[in-house]
Amino acid sequence: MSVPTAILQVICPDRPGLVSELSGWVAANGGNIRHADHHTDAGAGLFLSRIEWQLEGFGLPREAVAPAVTALAERLGGDGQVHFSDAAARVAIFVSKQDHCLVDLLWRTRAGELPMQVPLVISNHPDLQALAEDFGARFVHLPVLPDSKQEAERAQLQVLEDHGIELVVLAKYMQVLSPDFLASFPAVINIHHSFLPAFKGAQPYHRAWERGVKLIGATAHYVTEDLDGGPIIEQATVPVSHRDDVEDLIRKGRDMERLALARALRLHLRRQVMVYRGRTAVFS
Amino acid sequence: MSVPTAILQVICPDRPGLVSELSGWVAANGGNIRHADHHTDAGAGLFLSRIEWQLEGFGLPREAVAPAVTALAERLGGDGQVHFSDAAARVAIFVSKQDHCLVDLLWRTRAGELPMQVPLVISNHPDLQALAEDFGARFVHLPVLPDSKQEAERAQLQVLEDHGIELVVLAKYMQVLSPDFLASFPAVINIHHSFLPAFKGAQPYHRAWERGVKLIGATAHYVTEDLDGGPIIEQATVPVSHRDDVEDLIRKGRDMERLALARALRLHLRRQVMVYRGRTAVFS
Amino acid sequence: MSVPTAILQVICPDRPGLVSELSGWVAANGGNIRHADHHTDAGAGLFLSRIEWQLEGFGLPREAVAPAVTALAERLGGDGQVHFSDAAARVAIFVSKQDHCLVDLLWRTRAGELPMQVPLVISNHPDLQALAEDFGARFVHLPVLPDSKQEAERAQLQVLEDHGIELVVLAKYMQVLSPDFLASFPAVINIHHSFLPAFKGAQPYHRAWERGVKLIGATAHYVTEDLDGGPIIEQATVPVSHRDDVEDLIRKGRDMERLALARALRLHLRRQVMVYRGRTAVFS
Amino acid sequence: MSVPTAILQVICPDRPGLVSELSGWVAANGGNIRHADHHTDAGAGLFLSRIEWQLEGFGLPREAVAPAVTALAERLGGDGQVHFSDAAARVAIFVSKQDHCLVDLLWRTRAGELPMQVPLVISNHPDLQALAEDFGARFVHLPVLPDSKQEAERAQLQVLEDHGIELVVLAKYMQVLSPDFLASFPAVINIHHSFLPAFKGAQPYHRAWERGVKLIGATAHYVTEDLDGGPIIEQATVPVSHRDDVEDLIRKGRDMERLALARALRLHLRRQVMVYRGRTAVFS
Repeated sequence: MSVPTAILQVICPDRPGLVSELSGWVAANGGNIRHADHHTDAGAGLFLSRIEWQLEGFGLPREAVAPAVTALAERLGGDGQVHFSDAAARVAIFVSKQDHCLVDLLWRTRAGELPMQVPLVISNHPDLQALAEDFGARFVHLPVLPDSKQEAERAQLQVLEDHGIELVVLAKYMQVLSPDFLASFPAVINIHHSFLPAFKGAQPYHRAWERGVKLIGATAHYVTEDLDGGPIIEQATVPVSHRDDVEDLIRKGRDMERLALARALRLHLRRQVMVYRGRTAVFS
Repeated sequence: MSVPTAILQVICPDRPGLVSELSGWVAANGGNIRHADHHTDAGAGLFLSRIEWQLEGFGLPREAVAPAVTALAERLGGDGQVHFSDAAARVAIFVSKQDHCLVDLLWRTRAGELPMQVPLVISNHPDLQALAEDFGARFVHLPVLPDSKQEAERAQLQVLEDHGIELVVLAKYMQVLSPDFLASFPAVINIHHSFLPAFKGAQPYHRAWERGVKLIGATAHYVTEDLDGGPIIEQATVPVSHRDDVEDLIRKGRDMERLALARALRLHLRRQVMVYRGRTAVFS
Repeated sequence: MSVPTAILQVICPDRPGLVSELSGWVAANGGNIRHADHHTDAGAGLFLSRIEWQLEGFGLPREAVAPAVTALAERLGGDGQVHFSDAAARVAIFVSKQDHCLVDLLWRTRAGELPMQVPLVISNHPDLQALAEDFGARFVHLPVLPDSKQEAERAQLQVLEDHGIELVVLAKYMQVLSPDFLASFPAVINIHHSFLPAFKGAQPYHRAWERGVKLIGATAHYVTEDLDGGPIIEQATVPVSHRDDVEDLIRKGRDMERLALARALRLHLRRQVMVYRGRTAVFS
Repeated sequence: MSVPTAILQVICPDRPGLVSELSGWVAANGGNIRHADHHTDAGAGLFLSRIEWQLEGFGLPREAVAPAVTALAERLGGDGQVHFSDAAARVAIFVSKQDHCLVDLLWRTRAGELPMQVPLVISNHPDLQALAEDFGARFVHLPVLPDSKQEAERAQLQVLEDHGIELVVLAKYMQVLSPDFLASFPAVINIHHSFLPAFKGAQPYHRAWERGVKLIGATAHYVTEDLDGGPIIEQATVPVSHRDDVEDLIRKGRDMERLALARALRLHLRRQVMVYRGRTAVFS
């Protein structure tokens, strides 16, 4: 149904002629552009571009594309990367005990909604082993205790490397990743169960109930050292009323968590998200 | 189109038989109930009830209803009040320079969407005088300077009293009311231009842009001494993207401010909102 | 967490005193009301009431409640029924080949979101047998061919009876139930993949794409002989753009189908829905 | 705040190199692109492009841009047009008796939300004359009776021409424009008070109430000879419940009408909408 494409992402200082230069490079190599999106952040003086073109008929062999893109971006004084739509990302999902996001992601992957494969599920609890294995993922149980966290994270990093993982998704993983972990493996997406920046940290639904809000939400974001402060990809809200107790907020919130996480992940995997200066441009 | 009704609101300690007792009292006096809503907050051990019945055919004369309701609520160990749907509330609107909420409220009042009259508009700036007067409101300009705030608030309270105002609406009034003001005149509804509790305080749109959120919102709430911390009546959100700069957030936010404030005010004026323990039950 | 309750639903001609009469009956029998909702349809001259009270301490033995309710409703010239919150409904799910709603409903049931049990899944295709059995349901494959539909429906009805089913959910069952089926088994909820009454009938996503709409939706409704014309319980919409092709509409629509069906089913199972004159009152 | 820009819109048969060719043309003339959006409709074999660049520093004199764009589009075998962001469109608003959309559009224009001027308001009723004139528009009352429609439309067209109008907005104009009118003046945007294609034609709120829907909506669309069948620009929905009677639907719907119409109009005026094959691409 969908033809294989190459997807170029470039960030560089803004100046006239960039759209022409980038699309000209694609055309000069015989590429047929299917999507081209650009964004200029005038305040930051930055230009962001995402160009997607068909691989069929493109003049460069696949292995030559990445070096050529790097050289192109360097000529523009910026950074560039390229992905191929037919290369399913290898993703590891971290969970604790709650299964709603895990089921949802595995089901969507199997249904073809998410262009990824999930060879690995890592958890600090054993509860979700059968579920992970039902969908063909290897389940690795690595308990995280207060005095064993450093060791557990080293083991996690090793397993990620062993499985050739490029992206970690925290699908209700109730642990905070250390700066050391993130320095070694920075590609991590989290789902936070509140409408950030409201209710950062623990027990957002309890605090939302206490505050008496009329809407609750969920936020999918990249993980940085700043807890719940990373670049936001997607947010969703749902109405609540005085009739809803904390349990109802948790139940209603689960639906928003599933939706926000799945949407964010799809956007990321289709390389529609670009991160800069603590924020995202989402070309959707 | 709508027949005149009496609206009873009672809050009292929860126990069996309360619905029957309250509705029985209405029936015993010949009232035909059109709406009856109840809420039990099990944690707080509180029962809240709102009952609305037709005045036509009701056995008590209008002036006897309030004392009877007070006595009824006292028998239940709680508080009660009654309002009549055909008595349009006298509301004062406080503004500064922005006119979008003021236009909206005055238009809705004239269109019959809000059961109130607006005899008075108070502002710390002269800009909106013509607008207020076009809709038949008296416009009172009371500048608020750092060293004259106490004096200005005294003048505001006097004008409110002179005009027999029962409710103040802060429709983008860019001043904080002092505890003294609120002690004298506690019935105040505010529109805050963020999705509370996110972005409390000043310049929420600028901070929302900085944070890179994907949804912005507005919150209508009762004003208490706790800045932006009062009981929430209504919240609304709207998607934003990386394409939106701060000006776009302000523009999109205005629509949510108008909607949230108008909805909250209508709910309040129809006596569908009950406040307890820093929160609201909204019977809609 | 939730105490067992009785839930009374009464529809009768409107007249003064009904709220008092019904709540008085509950109180007279020692019931502690937790929720009481009423609606008057002035045009139809009808009064609808839903009252929920704790079973603990209620004076009537459980088996005596239904007859007493019937007698009470008859005194009011209307119809009444009662359900008990701790009696999980026995529900059969009809499917064809698509699994997204089935997975969702089975997962929610196991998670405790839906107060029901699913002993039976019926399909005109064999594809979803393993999934149904994973969640402990019996899977019955009954092919429906043009000339065997009557026979297939008779078999379906027999299986429903054998399993003591009280409600059928059509979770993307791509067949139309005959009037004969519905006459024998009228309690059926369907999810239609459009925002009814737009795009009744077949291939709503294709037709939505053709029309170039900017929002698509899903509708959960009770099934009647009037195809896609039964009483609506819940509707949901999601934005689409010119970038979305039919496959994208189908994918985005699945999320709305899941949400609308799950919400409708929960409302039904908690007896928050009352049907009259081709429409619903939903006490949420 | 916003620098003057030129906005190019091109539709032509799809083939490789088009993005490069268009952006190369802008760059070759010294233009600094601020936004560039493209869309390929694979089924139709069409390529759509919208490119916006700063006028400052652009090498062609303003009067030479349009001919150059026409020539460029012809070389691509398609159609092209160009607009300048600092040329406020001259818009006429058609109304009948309802004022909510008219007030909203005039207020937004004055507030700078809509890059247009409104020199003219035309109505088949005299009611809104004062309102139009308050905002500086000339009000022309042209009654439309069954046997004078043709004559009235001729007079409308004459007034439009006299005022140099480029766009007509039907802001609750309760008359159908004839094919003759549309042949003479095709640039017309209408707000329909339903979620099209549901409830085409008259009295959509009454029919929505009859059907018992749980959401109502509004649709802003270009007007064609096919009543309520023109290309959709924007749609909005809002929840309703069994408590809402027809009057409530009308009131809630007005908010959606205002929002959908204002959003659509802003998109159109910023030349973010492209129409093709009965549908729109909206670059927002």
